Amino acid sequence: MNGPPAVQKLTACLAKLPGVGRRSAERMALRLVRDPDGLLQDLIRTLRDAGASVVSCERCGTVTVREQNPCRLCSDPGRDDGILCVVEDPSDILKIEEAGVFRGRYHALMGKLSPMRGSGPGELRIRELCERVKGEGVREVLLALNTDVESDATAAFIVESLSGSGIRVSRLAFGLPAGSGIAYADEITLARAIRGRQDV
Amino acid sequence: MNGPPAVQKLTACLAKLPGVGRRSAERMALRLVRDPDGLLQDLIRTLRDAGASVVSCERCGTVTVREQNPCRLCSDPGRDDGILCVVEDPSDILKIEEAGVFRGRYHALMGKLSPMRGSGPGELRIRELCERVKGEGVREVLLALNTDVESDATAAFIVESLSGSGIRVSRLAFGLPAGSGIAYADEITLARAIRGRQDV
Repeated sequence: MNGPPAVQKLTACLAKLPGVGRRSAERMALRLVRDPDGLLQDLIRTLRDAGASVVSCERCGTVTVREQNPCRLCSDPGRDDGILCVVEDPSDILKIEEAGVFRGRYHALMGKLSPMRGSGPGELRIRELCERVKGEGVREVLLALNTDVESDATAAFIVESLSGSGIRVSRLAFGLPAGSGIAYADEITLARAIRGRQDV
Repeated sequence: MNGPPAVQKLTACLAKLPGVGRRSAERMALRLVRDPDGLLQDLIRTLRDAGASVVSCERCGTVTVREQNPCRLCSDPGRDDGILCVVEDPSDILKIEEAGVFRGRYHALMGKLSPMRGSGPGELRIRELCERVKGEGVREVLLALNTDVESDATAAFIVESLSGSGIRVSRLAFGLPAGSGIAYADEITLARAIRGRQDV
């Protein structure tokens, strides 16, 4: 890539987004600067609006508007406080909600244990999870993590952290295809994985 | 997707970028709002800088800085005015430059003929191409278009538009991609590679 420096910087920034490689970022950057008064301005405006209005829920960590914190899911009196679904990423909460079979509460870890990327237990919301388990009358923690090695290590670490608390810890059934992730699962697969959850 | 409206709007905007589907856009949007003071602000800043400093070259259509228009490639006195390489998208120019074997000038059409998307000859820079061919002493037009049906139609339209001008019109060779093998080639690629076989 040998375009103008401003395009190179935009490309580098876009390449930090999940699932975006250098080549895709380059195409996106060039598409954006080709239409500086259209899509580029739309993106600046929607980014600014989202940045100003959206926050992470103080309880579960999912995205919510500043005016509703704790979020809609944490505030809903019709949901079961007794079962807490732990996910890696807030987007997984939206995904599980789409499946429509889970009626408990959520907790996003904001990542997974990854020594390679310097993400240890301190970087994740595991302490908050243990506090919620103690304070909110949780009977069961359902681990809805991905199916790779780092996620398995994260699950094992949480099981260890909660051992002795006497609560049930389950995880999604292996209806998820190996080597893939929650973001790519279809709703039926997800629903089956929730119904088939097993003790660990 | 049932997140806050500002996230939904950001998702819709990101989904307009090339190669970005709804699910990828959603993941990107959630990644951005999770870090409203970091990556989100970086992206706003780099977008604003790029939008302010980058323009399309008035001659070839590729990206250039406002202060250098015509662009570096069009201004370079060491390049051959006699051969003009026609591409669909400005990003293709950067790609061909990386290959390092072409030393002529470029012309980006800004798309291809696509009745489905309402992109006719008037939407492309074909008139400008014909004017450049007349005015710049071009001996050969090299069509570096893609290999789908719409690109083929675009190539045919340009050949028709330039007929009678007496200049040579060529297009990139079809054949096996480097580093690949016959086992991975589709039937059309193989058929074209056989038809275009060359003596060794």
